[in-house]
Amino acid sequence: MGMEHPVSLNLRVRGLEHSATLAINQRSSELQALGREIHRLGLGQSPFPVPPSVIASLREHAEVKDYLDVRGLGSLRDSVARFHQRRDGVSISAEQVLVGPGSKELLFLLQLAFYGDILVPTPCWVSYTPQARILGRKVRTIPTRFEDRWQLTPEHFARICDSDRDRHRPRLLVLNYPANPHGLSYTEDELQGLADVARHYGVILLSDEIYGELRFDGDHRSVARYYPEGTIISSGLSKWCGAGGWRLGTFSFPAELRTLRESMTSVASETFTSVSAPIQYAAITAFDFGPEIEGYVSSARDILARLADFCFRRLSNAGIRIHPCEGGFYLFLDFGPIQDALRDRNINDSDTLCERLLEETGVATLPGRRFERPDDELSLRMAFVDFDGEAAMQALAQLGEGGLPADLASPVNEGFVRTHCASVCTAMDKIESWVHEMTSATTGPSRRDVAA
Amino acid sequence: MGMEHPVSLNLRVRGLEHSATLAINQRSSELQALGREIHRLGLGQSPFPVPPSVIASLREHAEVKDYLDVRGLGSLRDSVARFHQRRDGVSISAEQVLVGPGSKELLFLLQLAFYGDILVPTPCWVSYTPQARILGRKVRTIPTRFEDRWQLTPEHFARICDSDRDRHRPRLLVLNYPANPHGLSYTEDELQGLADVARHYGVILLSDEIYGELRFDGDHRSVARYYPEGTIISSGLSKWCGAGGWRLGTFSFPAELRTLRESMTSVASETFTSVSAPIQYAAITAFDFGPEIEGYVSSARDILARLADFCFRRLSNAGIRIHPCEGGFYLFLDFGPIQDALRDRNINDSDTLCERLLEETGVATLPGRRFERPDDELSLRMAFVDFDGEAAMQALAQLGEGGLPADLASPVNEGFVRTHCASVCTAMDKIESWVHEMTSATTGPSRRDVAA
Repeated sequence: MGMEHPVSLNLRVRGLEHSATLAINQRSSELQALGREIHRLGLGQSPFPVPPSVIASLREHAEVKDYLDVRGLGSLRDSVARFHQRRDGVSISAEQVLVGPGSKELLFLLQLAFYGDILVPTPCWVSYTPQARILGRKVRTIPTRFEDRWQLTPEHFARICDSDRDRHRPRLLVLNYPANPHGLSYTEDELQGLADVARHYGVILLSDEIYGELRFDGDHRSVARYYPEGTIISSGLSKWCGAGGWRLGTFSFPAELRTLRESMTSVASETFTSVSAPIQYAAITAFDFGPEIEGYVSSARDILARLADFCFRRLSNAGIRIHPCEGGFYLFLDFGPIQDALRDRNINDSDTLCERLLEETGVATLPGRRFERPDDELSLRMAFVDFDGEAAMQALAQLGEGGLPADLASPVNEGFVRTHCASVCTAMDKIESWVHEMTSATTGPSRRDVAA
Repeated sequence: MGMEHPVSLNLRVRGLEHSATLAINQRSSELQALGREIHRLGLGQSPFPVPPSVIASLREHAEVKDYLDVRGLGSLRDSVARFHQRRDGVSISAEQVLVGPGSKELLFLLQLAFYGDILVPTPCWVSYTPQARILGRKVRTIPTRFEDRWQLTPEHFARICDSDRDRHRPRLLVLNYPANPHGLSYTEDELQGLADVARHYGVILLSDEIYGELRFDGDHRSVARYYPEGTIISSGLSKWCGAGGWRLGTFSFPAELRTLRESMTSVASETFTSVSAPIQYAAITAFDFGPEIEGYVSSARDILARLADFCFRRLSNAGIRIHPCEGGFYLFLDFGPIQDALRDRNINDSDTLCERLLEETGVATLPGRRFERPDDELSLRMAFVDFDGEAAMQALAQLGEGGLPADLASPVNEGFVRTHCASVCTAMDKIESWVHEMTSATTGPSRRDVAA
């Protein structure tokens, strides 16, 4: 064939970057292979194993080979519906659930099927905008502020809806809480406020609650409580069940959005067909959320809460702007307060910030740019997951009834994370030294010359 | 929200039919639930179990939970590359393989990434055209003829390339052999001829060889032998490994199509991320194709060849136009020779043909229209898979060394399929009676009145 002509490609996919989280993981492996000590705080993967009963269920169903219902196995959809009824107080039936190979794939189908504006507060998860680009759509990003805890305020949301000449444009707002990349969650008042605005302007909400079970205080609330008729809840096995690599996500629709659900189902039947059958059977055990799963999730929260607090205190002390994390396993770091010192070292954007941090300390993170922040904002996301979650859970279990002290700042907690999450703690030491060295250095012209 | 306004949907997905094969399966279940005896020849799912060693491998890897490389697990890609080296005589390395959750999903990504004409000879598999529609593309179908064994001839292919004003339009031709929906395969001469034309016009070939291992004479040839630089080979676990519900497909690219492969990989990283990890580990055992898998595939062929022959003879005798099946588990039936009798009963299109066949005999099939044949062509696809493949394999094993007679028409073979594929055989009896009753009935005006 005419190989002198390069292959003709869709312009929308030309030059698309690989998913940022996957790319950083590969780069970290390369450096590790060169013998460098790398602290892998890039990829946001649960450090915990899949709960034993869920693994047992996969083994038990290894022989299952039939193509399943495109919407998902009926008994799994039942289990997912009951999960949301119980935990989110919404009345969802199996009919209203769609199971996909990851919630990322379901989000892609949603962007494909929905015809309207998609609004995403930033910093946000890395794949919304590339998905829109692939589909030839545009995502409208809404920058939020550190001062607002990186949350979209109801007033801001209303102002945006109101500023369009056509107030009834079809719109879909993506909310994610506890959030990737900052671990913060909305308060009940904020959720109520956002729900009121959404109802007023007829905006559909895609509420990504995949970290919901990992809210440290165990008190996750869904916005669907306040706006059941317009909220799609997204969940899955990847985060609270530690099974990211298994690829199973769920969308739960209100009855009012039946046509949207059916359109997505039609597209699913022409693309992924159905989710891997043995995985679906195993997922029933997870969503049934029996006492073993309950205990597992509770242990995960206990460990993550203490590690998050340790990281928060160390980074705050170093002069980095940061909010305490309320759930999940991310912190979003703003190096703004030390930007002069960074610029003295020719670090003027988040990409360079992360590259230099990786090269000079071995700590792998992801630049704020990937979360739709401005290029020159010196921000990054840290996933504090580089530890053996199984060993940490065993150590916690051995502490017996009392567990770890409720006072997060207790030296017992610090001892625990130092022992069982050593790489993450060392990474904090290294970041602290790195910042300290920079900020204490003379920043006169001679120093600049050296850096340049 | 303004639920009085229906949800705003992408026009490309509005009114999309559910995938035909999935829909027929659900309809069959409904009738079965009503107590009707249904012969399920609609959905094309392997009747055989997943080989025990592959299931054992899934059990062994049930704990694997990490997100894998978006391209697929390295050792699986190695195994797939060796599989094609050995069986198709092409030099493919692990770098050139992309693993997806089913080859259907990979085909969707291909249609999304490639920018050019997509040519598909018909009758063809059901999802090419709906996928194009979802993406706002057009597939160019090329009707083939019964007289050409439903195959695209090199001359016809050349004529189509030549008839375009712009001979160097970017084009991709989809070939599928042994084929869904007719079980026929190209001869070596035909493959060589198609390869020459493709090379001359710079056409990329997507060679869907998912039924290759199920060619009854064991002599499947890939067009990649004749056109390695421009052929993508599609394979997967669904057909020859009996694991349709597991969802794992593979594309193997020539080095020359690197940019296309990389674009598809980028889209994969923003959609399905990676294929379920435990499934990928299990798939290594399948693609390694050891003696157990070899024996399993050989048994499957032996059984399918005899059942295909039985069906072919019965349907031919009934006066239906049909070619013998060379591989896989489909037959494509043309009721053209008895169209007068069908029209007397108000059966004027393939949808009605299949509906009436299902209602009047309990045999579920799929109309020719779904395979991109003209609405008024009285054709349908039959998947002769409604039997317990595991029991049939066990019975075959008990016959010992000699196995079943090589003479397909031997009464021993008929006895075997009557015993072990009883529902399919009964379906043939019923179709034969149905046709006989129609063609022997008086077709005078009085009969027409009754039918109307």
